[in-house]
Amino acid sequence: MKRRPLIFITNDDGISAPGLKALVQVARELGEVLVVAPDSPQSGQGHAITIHDPVRMKGVKVFGDIETWECSGTPVDCVKLGKQVALAGRVADLCVSGINHGSNASINILYSGTLSAAMEASLEGINSIGFSLLDYSWEADFEPSKPFIRLMMQHVLTNGLHNCKLLNVNIPNLPHEQIKGFKVCRQAEAHWEERYIEAKDPRGQKYYWLTGDFVNGDHDVETDVWALKNGYISVVPSGHNLTKYEALEGLKDLEIGN
Amino acid sequence: MKRRPLIFITNDDGISAPGLKALVQVARELGEVLVVAPDSPQSGQGHAITIHDPVRMKGVKVFGDIETWECSGTPVDCVKLGKQVALAGRVADLCVSGINHGSNASINILYSGTLSAAMEASLEGINSIGFSLLDYSWEADFEPSKPFIRLMMQHVLTNGLHNCKLLNVNIPNLPHEQIKGFKVCRQAEAHWEERYIEAKDPRGQKYYWLTGDFVNGDHDVETDVWALKNGYISVVPSGHNLTKYEALEGLKDLEIGN
Repeated sequence: MKRRPLIFITNDDGISAPGLKALVQVARELGEVLVVAPDSPQSGQGHAITIHDPVRMKGVKVFGDIETWECSGTPVDCVKLGKQVALAGRVADLCVSGINHGSNASINILYSGTLSAAMEASLEGINSIGFSLLDYSWEADFEPSKPFIRLMMQHVLTNGLHNCKLLNVNIPNLPHEQIKGFKVCRQAEAHWEERYIEAKDPRGQKYYWLTGDFVNGDHDVETDVWALKNGYISVVPSGHNLTKYEALEGLKDLEIGN
Repeated sequence: MKRRPLIFITNDDGISAPGLKALVQVARELGEVLVVAPDSPQSGQGHAITIHDPVRMKGVKVFGDIETWECSGTPVDCVKLGKQVALAGRVADLCVSGINHGSNASINILYSGTLSAAMEASLEGINSIGFSLLDYSWEADFEPSKPFIRLMMQHVLTNGLHNCKLLNVNIPNLPHEQIKGFKVCRQAEAHWEERYIEAKDPRGQKYYWLTGDFVNGDHDVETDVWALKNGYISVVPSGHNLTKYEALEGLKDLEIGN
């Protein structure tokens, strides 16, 4: 008898996030599940790792009989330390991260702990998927997403991924019947227009708090932002190589003073 | 008379790092300098941003008459908040980040606060360079690097960058006369083999601390790791788009259930 696949689950909203619970509910139908999640919210942590401080990890009972660990570090720490302490020699067949409360489309992949955790697992050679629902609310309804997430996970477990180890999957915040399906696409060239709110704390000291608007000037139909606006689930095959190959030749004039 | 270029400087080792001081010393010969650096070490912070907490920033006197701010946040926070509070409407002609104490070649760009800060500035449309010296010591000797950094900054200020906004520049830890010059190249496909040291704190509670070896199996001469091993300064034109374009076509089978 073929063994059930081993699915490693993490997130960045923390161990108590409803999105994590929804992902566990889907994954347990498809395989053996192992959860390693941050013990506190870690949104916006990007690919941060903890190097100047120790990291803690302990087994917890959060999802019934499912092996679950909470980690004091970042999402990427969860993957790195999870490999040593929780996987402990076992090899995961799939890593899924999320379901994130809010969008990780376009350049948000850079800031996202959810996607960075999945990317870290992909660096370890594991097929990985980051799932996000376009609803920042803690009370977000993950039910309409679940059948699609199940379909995608099953597909990757069965067929693998071609020429890629990481998918950035964003799901529009729509009722199930209004979601048109999956669209394989590239990340849009959008940006954030930020404003910091300036205020004073109770001791009269100034502080700043980040806020801003996501602005997309890239209206190509081949982008994740277009797909999401048009009722599709965006699926962006993603890598970790930041080399801008198309610039290599034109920058040979930088080989100065050689 | 042409105005002097405005050079925005940041780092991830913090306001007191010798590498930052070295970079300021070079930059002040080339233009007007503005420094916004973290008030504490932020190595390994990657593209993390502070969203759940306020961020502080205040003007400090660290580099004589040079306008300098210290920020409580991550390197990327320094760029974002620096734009609003320190630049305050001015536009930088160049952002330089570093000089990092230690390598940011290959996949280290993902974990590096130094490079993430430069990338954030590039997202704002500013030509940006992250500089790193392959010496992790706080007492690293930056003198041999300075003429090369000056040359590179001057070149980018004069000629701009073609088809690119971000350079990841790593400098071998060699005497000046042994450095062969600049090599424009791609990031190597290396990885980290990590081990967490497991120990107990004074209260008897278990903790883990990250350690590991950088392992390069990519011996192509076109890589940054090769360049550095062979006495060159590696210059990797870098982007922020993680889409794996070569996988788009082959993954169309993921458009399931549409």
